[in-house]
Amino acid sequence: MSGEPAAKRSNKKGLLERLAEGVVIGDGGMIWAMELKGYAEAGKYTPEAAVEHPEAVLQMHREFVHNGAEVLQTCTFWSSKLEEETVEGVSVNDAACALALKAAKEASDPILVAGSVTKTDLYEQGESKEVVQAEFRRQLDFYVRNDFDFVIAEFFDHVLEAEWAVEVLKESGKPVLATVCIGPEGDADSFSPEQCALRLARAGADVVGVNCRFGPQTCLKTVAMMKRALKLAKLDHVYLAVQPYGYHTPDAPINGYSGMKEFPFAMDARVMTRIDAYNYAKEASKLGVRYIGGCCGFEGRHIRSMSEALQGKTGRIAPVTKRYGKWINTYADKDDERADAKHWLEMKPATGRPKSSAMSESVKYS
Amino acid sequence: MSGEPAAKRSNKKGLLERLAEGVVIGDGGMIWAMELKGYAEAGKYTPEAAVEHPEAVLQMHREFVHNGAEVLQTCTFWSSKLEEETVEGVSVNDAACALALKAAKEASDPILVAGSVTKTDLYEQGESKEVVQAEFRRQLDFYVRNDFDFVIAEFFDHVLEAEWAVEVLKESGKPVLATVCIGPEGDADSFSPEQCALRLARAGADVVGVNCRFGPQTCLKTVAMMKRALKLAKLDHVYLAVQPYGYHTPDAPINGYSGMKEFPFAMDARVMTRIDAYNYAKEASKLGVRYIGGCCGFEGRHIRSMSEALQGKTGRIAPVTKRYGKWINTYADKDDERADAKHWLEMKPATGRPKSSAMSESVKYS
Amino acid sequence: MSGEPAAKRSNKKGLLERLAEGVVIGDGGMIWAMELKGYAEAGKYTPEAAVEHPEAVLQMHREFVHNGAEVLQTCTFWSSKLEEETVEGVSVNDAACALALKAAKEASDPILVAGSVTKTDLYEQGESKEVVQAEFRRQLDFYVRNDFDFVIAEFFDHVLEAEWAVEVLKESGKPVLATVCIGPEGDADSFSPEQCALRLARAGADVVGVNCRFGPQTCLKTVAMMKRALKLAKLDHVYLAVQPYGYHTPDAPINGYSGMKEFPFAMDARVMTRIDAYNYAKEASKLGVRYIGGCCGFEGRHIRSMSEALQGKTGRIAPVTKRYGKWINTYADKDDERADAKHWLEMKPATGRPKSSAMSESVKYS
Amino acid sequence: MSGEPAAKRSNKKGLLERLAEGVVIGDGGMIWAMELKGYAEAGKYTPEAAVEHPEAVLQMHREFVHNGAEVLQTCTFWSSKLEEETVEGVSVNDAACALALKAAKEASDPILVAGSVTKTDLYEQGESKEVVQAEFRRQLDFYVRNDFDFVIAEFFDHVLEAEWAVEVLKESGKPVLATVCIGPEGDADSFSPEQCALRLARAGADVVGVNCRFGPQTCLKTVAMMKRALKLAKLDHVYLAVQPYGYHTPDAPINGYSGMKEFPFAMDARVMTRIDAYNYAKEASKLGVRYIGGCCGFEGRHIRSMSEALQGKTGRIAPVTKRYGKWINTYADKDDERADAKHWLEMKPATGRPKSSAMSESVKYS
Repeated sequence: MSGEPAAKRSNKKGLLERLAEGVVIGDGGMIWAMELKGYAEAGKYTPEAAVEHPEAVLQMHREFVHNGAEVLQTCTFWSSKLEEETVEGVSVNDAACALALKAAKEASDPILVAGSVTKTDLYEQGESKEVVQAEFRRQLDFYVRNDFDFVIAEFFDHVLEAEWAVEVLKESGKPVLATVCIGPEGDADSFSPEQCALRLARAGADVVGVNCRFGPQTCLKTVAMMKRALKLAKLDHVYLAVQPYGYHTPDAPINGYSGMKEFPFAMDARVMTRIDAYNYAKEASKLGVRYIGGCCGFEGRHIRSMSEALQGKTGRIAPVTKRYGKWINTYADKDDERADAKHWLEMKPATGRPKSSAMSESVKYS
Repeated sequence: MSGEPAAKRSNKKGLLERLAEGVVIGDGGMIWAMELKGYAEAGKYTPEAAVEHPEAVLQMHREFVHNGAEVLQTCTFWSSKLEEETVEGVSVNDAACALALKAAKEASDPILVAGSVTKTDLYEQGESKEVVQAEFRRQLDFYVRNDFDFVIAEFFDHVLEAEWAVEVLKESGKPVLATVCIGPEGDADSFSPEQCALRLARAGADVVGVNCRFGPQTCLKTVAMMKRALKLAKLDHVYLAVQPYGYHTPDAPINGYSGMKEFPFAMDARVMTRIDAYNYAKEASKLGVRYIGGCCGFEGRHIRSMSEALQGKTGRIAPVTKRYGKWINTYADKDDERADAKHWLEMKPATGRPKSSAMSESVKYS
Repeated sequence: MSGEPAAKRSNKKGLLERLAEGVVIGDGGMIWAMELKGYAEAGKYTPEAAVEHPEAVLQMHREFVHNGAEVLQTCTFWSSKLEEETVEGVSVNDAACALALKAAKEASDPILVAGSVTKTDLYEQGESKEVVQAEFRRQLDFYVRNDFDFVIAEFFDHVLEAEWAVEVLKESGKPVLATVCIGPEGDADSFSPEQCALRLARAGADVVGVNCRFGPQTCLKTVAMMKRALKLAKLDHVYLAVQPYGYHTPDAPINGYSGMKEFPFAMDARVMTRIDAYNYAKEASKLGVRYIGGCCGFEGRHIRSMSEALQGKTGRIAPVTKRYGKWINTYADKDDERADAKHWLEMKPATGRPKSSAMSESVKYS
Repeated sequence: MSGEPAAKRSNKKGLLERLAEGVVIGDGGMIWAMELKGYAEAGKYTPEAAVEHPEAVLQMHREFVHNGAEVLQTCTFWSSKLEEETVEGVSVNDAACALALKAAKEASDPILVAGSVTKTDLYEQGESKEVVQAEFRRQLDFYVRNDFDFVIAEFFDHVLEAEWAVEVLKESGKPVLATVCIGPEGDADSFSPEQCALRLARAGADVVGVNCRFGPQTCLKTVAMMKRALKLAKLDHVYLAVQPYGYHTPDAPINGYSGMKEFPFAMDARVMTRIDAYNYAKEASKLGVRYIGGCCGFEGRHIRSMSEALQGKTGRIAPVTKRYGKWINTYADKDDERADAKHWLEMKPATGRPKSSAMSESVKYS
């Protein structure tokens, strides 16, 4: 990386400044999008695309920025599980970092880049804190070396492992956002959402919340529980973050989508519309969440809708909105019900699937 | 264009040769994909992205090729409606042609490029055949100039206008594929599917069928009617093509999705899964359709699934399949129901939407 | 039967007079109601209850009258299939006639009693017209002997057999109502609804239409086809009748509910609400149908709702309505959405069944 | 009442003896059934039918007995709210008692008759314990005078009022069954199901549980909570009872069906099938519930199915079953999927309502 982007970025506000001022719109899930396009494998979900198809990864970053994301997360999900860490001599992690930085640099607005660490197999295998933290430290190095804006610990089933990650990430001196992938029933060790929030906050995370595994309604319910706990503990200077799974799964078992037999190839009918994304963003903001993003299934249209819903809270206008206006006004000058925002916002969309049910018949409880 | 791709392409088999040998997998709808990503405007659906965001258009072409499309259609849908035909001095049509050719050139397998003409406003405004055909001729020029592999007349509500288009396209000497966007109830002038097929075939189309406006089940029903008519009229040397809308709309009125109030922002729950795409491709092939593609809503995962379903009929393996195997085998070595292809192929996916209905409450009949 | 009811009945208007003046509300299906209550056997559906549980049969007649039925049909469905025609020395047919007459006699308003003949197995076994008509004549005798008000030929899959029945019933000198149990696709021999209507009218039926096998929407569609045919043939002095199955089966195959694997024990979720019955009656009347009743599944609340919907067309007020007012006004003085008739009439009721689909997955086409 | 039935009944086993030996099948809801038939008014739900239409009340009792109910509850629901306690000089309460006793006397098997008291308006108006208990004592007198077999306190929103009722009912020396109409979230004063069970048991009830307001799944969940509490408190000699609402309402708010805008005229699609009744009875028995009945919406076919499901636990065969065999075997000798009990027991019935949703859009939370 040349010094230029650093210079350019040096003028931009950091995560905590932005959160202090209002809402920050995150991006969507990179690895899920890569799988849908044929650049990653379901089940494995490793990010070899960063080296094998950099143009696809780069374009996905661009799509998020174009639609209003203020943050780009590197396409490094489960890079710890890659069979080969380098492909044709190039490090996947390094390549992924370079792509996020390139997309940020190209953008007309200042974009934050974030590196993330996720749960390791080591923890579940019973390895010691030293061993697990060494793995986090190894991943963190990529982000430190690339002078990233902040770091994320995410997709943790065990809040205890997430705490170890937070401790390591704090060493970077960068802001730390930490989320667990849990529902209202708590983590894999039965720590409640309230306990998870308190533990992450006390471990030093600047932003805490949930990501993935559950749809938007469930995630907001969980974050509301976290909020109450932080308030009671007088820790409400800690910001809240939410990055849900982009599909409706009210029927998910305790471990979320992983327990559903439709996962991952038959989830499509559950996908959020841009209307759902709009309502989700409004509700999240009303609840006081400051970092509002998405995970698997969130694509350009969802980020756009969130950005447009919260323009008043972010003070930013997405490039797509500058070009075309808010999607909800698309038909505003037509003589048609669709001219009315209410038509869209109160719609209960039909599924077109008369032989499908609303709830899964095939949930398998773990 | 340099002479090289022409040379390279000169070795490749043309559309009619390929259709004679087996099934050809088409691509998905470019303009719909551009809108979802924020590079086109709903309602207008014009292709300025070819100049404003060429990287997005190019990447979408690549995604189709990567997932098994054998044909790329230029991103020129409704270019006749563009407010400005050139953006910053560059012709949108020329730029779009260049992007499709570039993606084809990059591909490891020989890819066919097709230019298409669509219905004009002129026809509905009552302009004369000369005027309407002049417009088609103007569009055709781009494709002729760029030495395209074949030409498509598509998205016609009036078979009579489609016939005029076919007459013009025939002048190019290239193979002509002509489709109307109708359901089993026929075109806007009440010509039945049977009559439409016969008229297009008699006008000289090499391939006839339907595209867009209706979901896969409805489109196949319409094509089956066309097939019977061609057979009875001893015109069954004419090939059949189908490129449906990628959403389930059994409740669409006679003019298809356009009459549904959910259109276009609340269609998501209706989107085809890759399972649906698999079954659709199998059925289409069983019906004798040789050109099997998609329209709005078909993305990488659908094309992949169609390609994998019909590998035996195309003799081709998609790049994604070479890299990762067939998606349906993803979990084949797991000890899980998902290991079994039957699990996926017979699945009735739940919608996760307990307050939505199967059929639209808000169909507005035209 | 004593002469008294005859005397009493002699003052009452006959079927044709009533139809000439306005709408006549029929009753619901006796044998289906008996099965639900445990007094008949599914599959067989024979009317031994008339002898074994006369109090149950009588009470069902009373329920229909109380809720506004102007006609009582004897509980003699498929009496031709009874294993024993007499039970403990009593003829089932005679007992059934007596029960309908008793209920009519008790009523405060003049009630018409109708005897019906239904399809025989003889016809399908290929017996001659003489044999089949002898069976109809045998059944007719009961009604003639009891001085019934009019006769019904119903539940015929073959319009040809229905014609034979009409010929016999005409011999009674009573008005004849004849219905086939078909959908828009026609009868078991592919006679269209239009042809069926014409044939029955030409055979001498005073009222023609459809009964059972399909839900209200499908039945009205079929009757609309009949209406057009009668009009074109200048036979529109013949009245129309409709007596649908009381369950929604838009997914029924060509032979109606019989082809559905949910039949008969899992149809409950499809049952018409009184709102559906209200809307059905309004639509039937608007279409010009004069004889509006129900078949299997219609119980008191449905008849009440039809009666209340068409009070202006019948000039009659049901006993239940005299006592309690129209059901739709039940909450009229509450401070609640339910006070408003619109609340009920436009309601799309939820099913409370999140794992059930709208359409059957298990339709077995015959 | 003559002494005869007393004599006849003197030979029969009492409630507690029967519960000690196995399961007792209750009846369904009288007043709801009367409303469906036009003999009571929705919203009011008072039992004037006992005097105005005794034949309808009597026949409903008979239907329950015919289908296997071992208990008849008097049709006296909310008799405390009757505008006139006597109709044409006859006391409604006395008439209702006589009808239940008559139906019991007619039955071939010994049937228990039970009188019930329900919540009063007095309690909610803040009247003293003396005043409220005086009202219960007034109602109890009817049952004592008629030498009833046992007494029921049911449909209480406040467990505290139910306790007062139990204290009064105990004065009769008869067995007392006491139920609250609550879901898993507890009563109107936030007493949990566990607390409710303990309070009723400690007040002296021989049988405790829940009735009405919620569908079978919710009721069983609530009773399971009660069971755990009684066990922990070593009160498990107290029997459990469940009498659910006969409709599926997983989306009901905390006050049950009363909070749903579909109530009461658009609940039909939610009604239990006989399959649901079968599965409900099996589950209730497996949970250890001994008194298994139904409330509003349970009719003959449901009671039959429960009786047939638990024949091994009751040692009794319903009259309908003696006559026709178990309904689940109806098609056992057909060459058809329906021959197989599994076909019915695992069925997910379709709703036939493609424009309705699974869950209510119009739940109004109290």
